[in-house]
Parts: sequence; C-alpha cells; structure tokens
Amino acid sequence: MEAETAEQPVRAEAEAQLQEIQMLKDKLEAAENRYLRLQADFDNFKRRTRLDQEAGEKYRAQKLVTDLLPVLDNFGRALEIEADNEQTKSVLQGMDMVYRSLIDALKKEGVEPIEAVGKEFDPHQHHAVMQGDDAAYGSNIVIEEFQKGYLLKDRVIRPSMVKVNQ
Amino acid sequence: MEAETAEQPVRAEAEAQLQEIQMLKDKLEAAENRYLRLQADFDNFKRRTRLDQEAGEKYRAQKLVTDLLPVLDNFGRALEIEADNEQTKSVLQGMDMVYRSLIDALKKEGVEPIEAVGKEFDPHQHHAVMQGDDAAYGSNIVIEEFQKGYLLKDRVIRPSMVKVNQ
Repeated sequence: MEAETAEQPVRAEAEAQLQEIQMLKDKLEAAENRYLRLQADFDNFKRRTRLDQEAGEKYRAQKLVTDLLPVLDNFGRALEIEADNEQTKSVLQGMDMVYRSLIDALKKEGVEPIEAVGKEFDPHQHHAVMQGDDAAYGSNIVIEEFQKGYLLKDRVIRPSMVKVNQ
Repeated sequence: MEAETAEQPVRAEAEAQLQEIQMLKDKLEAAENRYLRLQADFDNFKRRTRLDQEAGEKYRAQKLVTDLLPVLDNFGRALEIEADNEQTKSVLQGMDMVYRSLIDALKKEGVEPIEAVGKEFDPHQHHAVMQGDDAAYGSNIVIEEFQKGYLLKDRVIRPSMVKVNQ
C-alpha cells in the first residue's frame, strides 16, 4: 500500500493525460471532417460554376437575339413588296443581301429558324393559334406559319405561330 | 528507491503520453492551418469567379456585335441611294425604320457609335488613315470619318477610320 500511495499523483496525472489525448483526438477528427466538408463544398462550387459558365457562354447572346427578332420580322416584311420599277428592284436586291448577312451573323451565333410547315406539331417549338382541316396533310401537322420562330442553339427563343391540321 | 522502481513503468507511460499529446497538438495545428488555407483558396476562387462572371456578362454579346458591324455598314450604305420615284422612296423609308430598330436593339445591349468628326484624335478610339490640313479645325482634330467605329459599353469593338488635322 506504501508504493500505491506514492504512485497516486502519477496515476492522476496519467489519467488527465489520457483525457487530454482523447480530447485532442476528437478535435483532430472534427478538424479533419470540417476540412473534408469544405473540400466537398469547394468541389461542388467549382462544378456548378463550370456548368453556369458553359450555359452562360452558350446562351450569352440571348438578350440581343431576342431584341433582334422583331427587326428580322420587319425586315422580312419590308422585302415582300413587289417592285414596279428598276430602281426599286435594285434597292430591294441590295436590301435582300443586307437581310441575308444579318441572318448569317445570327446563324454564326447559333440562331436558327424553327421548321414548321409540313412538320408534326411540337408544343415546345410551335404555338398553335388556329386549327385547319386540310385533306392534303395528315393530322397534327403544321399547315401554315404566321410568324417565324427561332432557336438559339437548343433553346426556343420564340416559338413559331402556326395553324395545325386537326 | 523501492517506490521509484515501482513507478518506473508508470513514468515511461506518462512520457509516451506526453509525446502523443505533442504529436496530436501538432497534427491539430496542421489540420487547422490546412483548413484556413483551403478556406482562403475558396474565398479567392469565389471572388475571381464573380469578377469573371461580371466581365462575361458585360461583354457577352461582343462576338455577335462584331459580326453585326459589317451588316450595319452595308445597311447604312444601301440607304444612301437617291430615290427617283415614289415606290423607291417609300421602300427606303421603310428600310430606314428597320435600320433604326437594328441600331436601337444594339444600343440596348450597350453598343454606341464612337464620336469622331470635331473631336480630338484619340488613338484608343480612332484609327488615322489620312492627315488633313483644314484651317477651319484645330490641330489633332478629326475632320473626316471614313468608317464608323463602335463601343460595347467601355470597350472599343472597332475604332473609327478617320482623317486627322495636322
């Protein structure tokens, strides 16, 4: 018992050390878990950022393209006039070249007209404003287009306004 | 000495525990520093991403705008014809409206023509292709514009081609 009494403070110290070791191990584990969670957050953020950037890049011109569609519509209509003299004919030819260069510039950015007449009606691309009954076409086929629709890459910027066969 | 001998293994254990405590403290400090570094990296990445997105957003339409400038040039030139009859006059009026709506759509995106004639020559905005000697203007003043230049917000997309007074 003599020796045991002498060991008493040593044992108490050892006990306290064991507790500190456990506390440090817990803290270390917590710190490592916190690091792993932050690493996972960071990876997620990078991935989302990359996807956002890709989408932003892909559709970057959407606002300008949307604003240009009425210009295209009016330009197309202005070209439909029937020339009754040589000068008007020549002006219209020149303007038609400008019109086509405008369409080409938009095409380079990924803008394409939506195919409509003769195609099966697609509610994602076509907006049906009338129903028709034309024996020459099958059921649910677009038979007339009132306003051209446009895609920017795979995104519908404006649906076509169409007449669909019953 | 009896007691000391009995304490020997306990002391050795305590020593080992102290070493483990020090090792754990070092590891914990290292883990916390690693966390702080990662946190700083993450913050930097977020800040850079936000700046990139702002710049990307600001100049998003640059490519399409660049492709539209020759269309604008040709459109402007095609409108300069002198009508010799009523139909041509009416067609040109209609086309002038289309032209102005094209310029308006570009303006909404932040595209503005660069001011040139009468302004002091600015090598960042003007490209001097000729020198003039016109007593009506001061020195280093733009006295003629051969091709219009354009800004997208604060960025020169195409400088004006000009004649500068000596």
